[in-house]
Amino acid sequence: MEPPFDVIRFERPALRVLDQSRLPHEERWLEIRGLDVLEEAIRSLRVRGAPLLGLCGAAGVAIAAEADSSEAALRAAAERVGRVRPTAVELATGAAACRDAALAVPERERATAAWAFCAAYLRRRQAEDAALAAHGRDALPPGDVLTHCNTGTLATGGAGTALGVVRAAHAAGRLARCYVTETRPLLQGARLTAWELQRSGIPVVLLPDTAAAALVVSGKVAAVITGADRIAANGDTANKVGTLGLALAAARAGVPFYIAAPTSTFDPACASGEEIPIEVRAADEVGGFGGVRWAPAGIEAWNPAFDVTPADLIAGIITERGTARPPYRAALAALLEHDEREAARR
Amino acid sequence: MEPPFDVIRFERPALRVLDQSRLPHEERWLEIRGLDVLEEAIRSLRVRGAPLLGLCGAAGVAIAAEADSSEAALRAAAERVGRVRPTAVELATGAAACRDAALAVPERERATAAWAFCAAYLRRRQAEDAALAAHGRDALPPGDVLTHCNTGTLATGGAGTALGVVRAAHAAGRLARCYVTETRPLLQGARLTAWELQRSGIPVVLLPDTAAAALVVSGKVAAVITGADRIAANGDTANKVGTLGLALAAARAGVPFYIAAPTSTFDPACASGEEIPIEVRAADEVGGFGGVRWAPAGIEAWNPAFDVTPADLIAGIITERGTARPPYRAALAALLEHDEREAARR
Repeated sequence: MEPPFDVIRFERPALRVLDQSRLPHEERWLEIRGLDVLEEAIRSLRVRGAPLLGLCGAAGVAIAAEADSSEAALRAAAERVGRVRPTAVELATGAAACRDAALAVPERERATAAWAFCAAYLRRRQAEDAALAAHGRDALPPGDVLTHCNTGTLATGGAGTALGVVRAAHAAGRLARCYVTETRPLLQGARLTAWELQRSGIPVVLLPDTAAAALVVSGKVAAVITGADRIAANGDTANKVGTLGLALAAARAGVPFYIAAPTSTFDPACASGEEIPIEVRAADEVGGFGGVRWAPAGIEAWNPAFDVTPADLIAGIITERGTARPPYRAALAALLEHDEREAARR
Repeated sequence: MEPPFDVIRFERPALRVLDQSRLPHEERWLEIRGLDVLEEAIRSLRVRGAPLLGLCGAAGVAIAAEADSSEAALRAAAERVGRVRPTAVELATGAAACRDAALAVPERERATAAWAFCAAYLRRRQAEDAALAAHGRDALPPGDVLTHCNTGTLATGGAGTALGVVRAAHAAGRLARCYVTETRPLLQGARLTAWELQRSGIPVVLLPDTAAAALVVSGKVAAVITGADRIAANGDTANKVGTLGLALAAARAGVPFYIAAPTSTFDPACASGEEIPIEVRAADEVGGFGGVRWAPAGIEAWNPAFDVTPADLIAGIITERGTARPPYRAALAALLEHDEREAARR
């Protein structure tokens, strides 16, 4: 599973990314040469998706290294970028990994090392997505699936996580169509996933978030599959708000609910979902979109960006190393150890 | 609980209704003197809400009687109006009841009888809402609640069903705020319920439909309460799409999920939810709103207007006659018999 198009390019001294806030109506690229602009792009969701944010976190360190390659400057840059969205653990881990790669070489070589790290990180991501897609294709029962938010090339720079699995299942003839929620409030399903699937020639059916439970109990889908922003040691999974509702509907209907996410999303330091910090976003994202307001003025809103799906609702966690099955504490630890053994061999 | 404002007026030979498709930004009244206009208003959701549709169904017969009071004409009018939205049983029952009231008198008195029926029906509705609100206030645990769609004065012409309960609980000091979903695709929660509550001075917190499950499991609400469009003999309940997801979240969290609806919503001819017809609406309601499109052009969509919540997820069905508790088949039948005894006494 190769990514069907580019969404991120490392063109030293600039990071170039597709501005996802303009999709599906306009394909505009951003050229980012400073941390202020990067921070705004992340905060405004011009770039989003946990794995792509990892690449952006790394790029933040490379961008900072252009101006100042001192250890203090690179540490400060990694720290700053890592904090922009608190729930997405990969933003911080991508930045930290690039920082460490740069600090491993003499100061005058650090900027070069940081950009080289970014390029290698993207290639690794693409290889991981391809491996994850193959595992997921084999794990999912044949039949149509429901997904949520965007977990495709726009989210990872590779084939995607949950959407990479959808691509692979479709390529294997195991899936005729993919159902996608609109994904309020920022509508990543309607804007991004629908656009990606349409562009890839995979039949897509859009539904309001409110119709997801009815779809799942209707028997129209054989599985539900989403990505993840952070997976705790016990398998509890933070993902785009709305995921919990899909998992509850799947449990009711006896339809398997899968998470598809790279092992870099694992956070063994979080014992359970209760320890995962949940970003609460601005009230004005609720009650309107794109310049149209449908709520009355001055309305209070509650707008968490993520929710936590308890591990007992998850049939499997599909990663680039294979699919973890319950009980998750041991299964996830085994996948992480596998990673460490691989790294030690390299 | 009196209705805090008017939404429907019978001003022979016209039906006047607040055009709900314009809210919350504009309060415009429609003057309806023909069945074509009435049918368009119902189909376009300028008037909506199961109980208010009952009043509109009755008004359709009164309007038809202005032109032709023959039995054939009144039967045809009731038939036509009753079919405009197949899931809302009250549209048909309201029209049939007005038809029967008119047919009980000589032909030259039928138009007068039909309009008189409408006025009496509205007064009865308001009395029923007040009784339902009082029962619900006592049935709900103290604390904040989550509701969905619009079940207020805009939906019934009275104090509302679920929202009438919210009003009564707030008036009794048992509830500090009401959480409301946006209710995609037509956003009745954000547009109508938020407006009604704000206008009534009841603190309201709006949330995306995707955040509802997270809210319910967070412990912020003591109960979830919605209306109903049709209740089968076994308690399975058709209501605005998205209700099933709220009920599943409530079950997971151990939070009681209540239906608030008049006994006129009961359909003993439907043995279970499987027999309730579900209206599927136009695809273009999904992927955009109010002139803004956020989905790519040419996208397929699935847009059911209702879903069915199985009776086992419902803690109680609050009516104007009291609150039915499981097992529902007997409890709902008892409430209907109570109605018949009352009617026989009148």
